Amino acid sequence: MTRVLYSLCGRDENRPFSPHCWKVSMALAHKGLDFVERPYPFTAIPEIEEGFSKTVPILRDGDRLVRDSFEIAVYLDEAYPDRPTLFGGEGGKALSRFVESFSQMVLHMPVTKMAIMHIHDMLDTPDQQYFRASRLDRLGKEIEAVAAEGDAERETFAARLEPVRRTLHFQPFLGGDSPLFADYILFGALQWMRVTAGPPPLAADDSVMQWFARCLDLHDGLGRRVTAA
Amino acid sequence: MTRVLYSLCGRDENRPFSPHCWKVSMALAHKGLDFVERPYPFTAIPEIEEGFSKTVPILRDGDRLVRDSFEIAVYLDEAYPDRPTLFGGEGGKALSRFVESFSQMVLHMPVTKMAIMHIHDMLDTPDQQYFRASRLDRLGKEIEAVAAEGDAERETFAARLEPVRRTLHFQPFLGGDSPLFADYILFGALQWMRVTAGPPPLAADDSVMQWFARCLDLHDGLGRRVTAA
Repeated sequence: MTRVLYSLCGRDENRPFSPHCWKVSMALAHKGLDFVERPYPFTAIPEIEEGFSKTVPILRDGDRLVRDSFEIAVYLDEAYPDRPTLFGGEGGKALSRFVESFSQMVLHMPVTKMAIMHIHDMLDTPDQQYFRASRLDRLGKEIEAVAAEGDAERETFAARLEPVRRTLHFQPFLGGDSPLFADYILFGALQWMRVTAGPPPLAADDSVMQWFARCLDLHDGLGRRVTAA
Repeated sequence: MTRVLYSLCGRDENRPFSPHCWKVSMALAHKGLDFVERPYPFTAIPEIEEGFSKTVPILRDGDRLVRDSFEIAVYLDEAYPDRPTLFGGEGGKALSRFVESFSQMVLHMPVTKMAIMHIHDMLDTPDQQYFRASRLDRLGKEIEAVAAEGDAERETFAARLEPVRRTLHFQPFLGGDSPLFADYILFGALQWMRVTAGPPPLAADDSVMQWFARCLDLHDGLGRRVTAA
């Protein structure tokens, strides 16, 4: 019985880049669960598992299909309680939503602005058309106009991570002495940047960059199997 | 044996305002532990418990003295494991540091700018002199210059809370279905504002304001025993 993570790619299926799919790859490795990753281009997502979800990640685990990265993490902790925990208890599960919300509301738009043209250029032609139209719809402007704001975001990106930096003053991972799903949430955002547009614009001696390097090393260097753009 | 929370006040000892002391008041109530609050003015803190700490909160619990709001919460959960948990497990404890860091790095400076003259005006004369000098040292400018930036902060304060707002989309408290210390951390920042400068500049129908009202209702309305400025 093969466990399958359906994820997202451009022309090169060896360079999956979705932040949400990276969260799940790391979560599966954290639980020590074997899986096969099957990256799909944007326009082929409706073909996955008979249109089970409009978005990836989707996890097939035997008879079960689960969508949404957070829901998948909750599922994995419930289905495999004897494996290493992703949340460290109910409090950790609840507060992981706050980390997710911080990542979505504070980091995702800046990464989008820095990475959007790079993502576009990684896609095959039908996906480029889909991406251009869907981002115009979602962001209210052409991708070139979004990308024009990317340089300014590079200047202020480090400051956005101050709450993370202060946390790392107390402990090596958001999850404490070792990583939890909360770390993979934040890792997903920076890995998305790294795989599409290149390393996050942070100094080498920034404690957040050092934490990111620790995350890239986890699980036999799973995150490093895809090189930086 | 009386449990004592040493906290901070101005001329009126019935209006304790320190965010960190409010975190501990709420944490003690959450654990169902009786305590007496003894608010001190800034310049009298060195007299508390023979100079045990330069800052409040300080908790005396029988033979034990504990300083620092986070350390006090950790102590309470360890000393009273059969009472309601403040962290909901090790993951919750670790991620509460991230909530603390968000509050410190994203909210405390704006609240300082909005509240600093109000705090000054609440203090007795020797404390006003101490406050003026210590803030000049810490912030690099006179308190009037800090306060001059307060109006601009009122405009942008709601946006800073977007990660909280999105979290409350999923659950009524940061801690999930019921509050944890993480809620009291954030509550402390808004209560500090409320007691010194008046209600936080948020719309009545803002889910963050509704969460704040729920927090004020907790523990027999502990937070409402001090009226808004």
